[in-house]
Amino acid sequence: MYRNFRFNVVASLEKARCGVLETPRGKIKTPAFIFCGTKASVKGISPRQLRENETQIILANTYHLFSYPGADYIKERGGLHKFMGWESPMLTDSGGFQIFSLGHGSVANEIKGKRSGTATLLKIDEQGALFKSYWDGGMQWLTPEKSIEIQRNLGADLIVSLDECTPYHSDKKYTEQSMERSHRWEKRSLDQFTMKNDFSQALYGIVQGGVHSDLRKRSAEFVSENPFFATAIGGTLGSTKEQMYEVVEMATDGLDASRPIHLLGIGGVADILKGVRLGIDTFDCVHPTRIARHGGALVKKQYRDAEKREHINLKRSRYAADDDPIELDCDCYACKNFSKAYLHYLLKANELLALSATTIHNIRFMNKLMEEIREGIFHKNLESVVKKWR
Amino acid sequence: MYRNFRFNVVASLEKARCGVLETPRGKIKTPAFIFCGTKASVKGISPRQLRENETQIILANTYHLFSYPGADYIKERGGLHKFMGWESPMLTDSGGFQIFSLGHGSVANEIKGKRSGTATLLKIDEQGALFKSYWDGGMQWLTPEKSIEIQRNLGADLIVSLDECTPYHSDKKYTEQSMERSHRWEKRSLDQFTMKNDFSQALYGIVQGGVHSDLRKRSAEFVSENPFFATAIGGTLGSTKEQMYEVVEMATDGLDASRPIHLLGIGGVADILKGVRLGIDTFDCVHPTRIARHGGALVKKQYRDAEKREHINLKRSRYAADDDPIELDCDCYACKNFSKAYLHYLLKANELLALSATTIHNIRFMNKLMEEIREGIFHKNLESVVKKWR
Repeated sequence: MYRNFRFNVVASLEKARCGVLETPRGKIKTPAFIFCGTKASVKGISPRQLRENETQIILANTYHLFSYPGADYIKERGGLHKFMGWESPMLTDSGGFQIFSLGHGSVANEIKGKRSGTATLLKIDEQGALFKSYWDGGMQWLTPEKSIEIQRNLGADLIVSLDECTPYHSDKKYTEQSMERSHRWEKRSLDQFTMKNDFSQALYGIVQGGVHSDLRKRSAEFVSENPFFATAIGGTLGSTKEQMYEVVEMATDGLDASRPIHLLGIGGVADILKGVRLGIDTFDCVHPTRIARHGGALVKKQYRDAEKREHINLKRSRYAADDDPIELDCDCYACKNFSKAYLHYLLKANELLALSATTIHNIRFMNKLMEEIREGIFHKNLESVVKKWR
Repeated sequence: MYRNFRFNVVASLEKARCGVLETPRGKIKTPAFIFCGTKASVKGISPRQLRENETQIILANTYHLFSYPGADYIKERGGLHKFMGWESPMLTDSGGFQIFSLGHGSVANEIKGKRSGTATLLKIDEQGALFKSYWDGGMQWLTPEKSIEIQRNLGADLIVSLDECTPYHSDKKYTEQSMERSHRWEKRSLDQFTMKNDFSQALYGIVQGGVHSDLRKRSAEFVSENPFFATAIGGTLGSTKEQMYEVVEMATDGLDASRPIHLLGIGGVADILKGVRLGIDTFDCVHPTRIARHGGALVKKQYRDAEKREHINLKRSRYAADDDPIELDCDCYACKNFSKAYLHYLLKANELLALSATTIHNIRFMNKLMEEIREGIFHKNLESVVKKWR
């Protein structure tokens, strides 16, 4: 069923593991970070710059691309890889997250559509979800079958089943009912996928169940019992860091360990280090590229200027005369060529180069972090990686 | 006086000429185009991408950098080259153009300051010009001596004397008086330059005189008789293309042909081709990089979609399903990797990559144009270059 895809664990350290995820467009060494190219472009950086900075895989958002320019249009252009000039592995999500999270009102800022603001969830039933497009205000149904067909047209290597993403404030009863409907949707996703499987794509199942360990357990069992290629951990992860780690632990516990495990929407350094030690293989988040566009540069512990932040804000006046690069030991183009003073100045002067240079640094930072994590697992000294990066 | 600078004409074809302009930071093959890095960054592109696309020289604007972040600040950072990571040749202007053109109200759109709008010229007298900064509203004098000192602190290789840039609507009497004052200012610029000449910079004189041939002649004589390294043609060039070519012809006629000649603010393809045939060695203009940020891609004749435009507008719906690159025969990164359809989509979706990709193309386009012009002069077939590019 997934004859062109393979996942092999090559080293492990307690629950943490190093693996190789093979796709028709290349191998991904895990643990790996997946950068968000929401609207068929990773903001502020070109495909070539992504590759030069060791990026293995990116994702694009089905919801955005479905709204504009449309999946048929992208298929006519030869698919997403060709359209955007990215020939390495790619993942698309199901489109559910944007619709449900916006519908539920929890992360309305997630989408900054240029026309009519944000999507609105109008209705959700057994069939799927009816919503109003952020792009043109048109009404659209998203069903499990449609999500698969859209993702087939987009042509990413790794695709994801449709689920309902329940927010933290849902009660247990709603979470349970929603989880069960998500399971039925995931089965329908799998059926639709299998029916026209041409072996160019592999399908992820999603674990739901909110913050409830019994639900997470049942959902993990459901996903493991069905022939998904890989597993993504979805839904709310709670309201605090501690709860997040607990929920990830419950969610990973019953999973089929031979499959890759993706943790959706997590991109902080400490969270990734924790996630890896709970058995997560891949992560994605807009965080590294989004903060770059606001002057936020990710830095290792020794370069930080505030206790709780994993990045420095280059707009701060303390950097106005700082002639050092963002990180003295970083080998990215920005650190090899520009000082914090120059980047600070460019931000103040509203110059585009500030955004692209900081984006390049953050991409290199994340890929270097993941590389050192892999080495740490391989050489059984993950603790020194944690000490340096966290 | 200019021991580290040299200009040699290596081939010529009627008035057109190929030369080599040597500076301490490298040689510039002429005719050459100088890209505008107004605020210490060429918008939408990195120094590395500039070099990869054969850029020989850029310029930065004294007026902007003097307003913010300040010339002393840039000197403390090691000078403009080091600050912005550009180690190749650079030119700074005198700062006069922005102040006078804005003061006279002719090109107020030229400056889009982020804070308090545009500069205001408050007073102009023998001493210099008093203006209100676009950046913080502060009152500042710009004098010939101050312009030289600012440019010394910025540290560009090629620097320019202060003149008053008179607009087209000035009458002949004002133009003549202003020209004479400009000559006095240029002499003061030269004195200030010579006093502390450390041989790291070379000074341009400027020809004024508006659209009046007798004044242009006198101004050309003035500049030629004084020990400037090179000559820039300033002031109004008239109100039509025909008049522009006439004025450039008058302005170049009496010039010392052993010096490089720069035509200020001209960047259209046809204008450059004409300018070269009138003996111009270097050109500068924001045009190629500015139109790129609005979806304008420069194209050779065969790729145009409108009679009078030297670029295509990628926002037009006719490009929505055009899977060809901007130019099929262009070797730039954008043309090798992206279709017009993708760039059209990125522009519609407000994605930054649209701006940087189109900027890369336009930079490559201009540098390739200049390269073929040089070959055309060398091989005595400039006409075929005109036929292809104009």
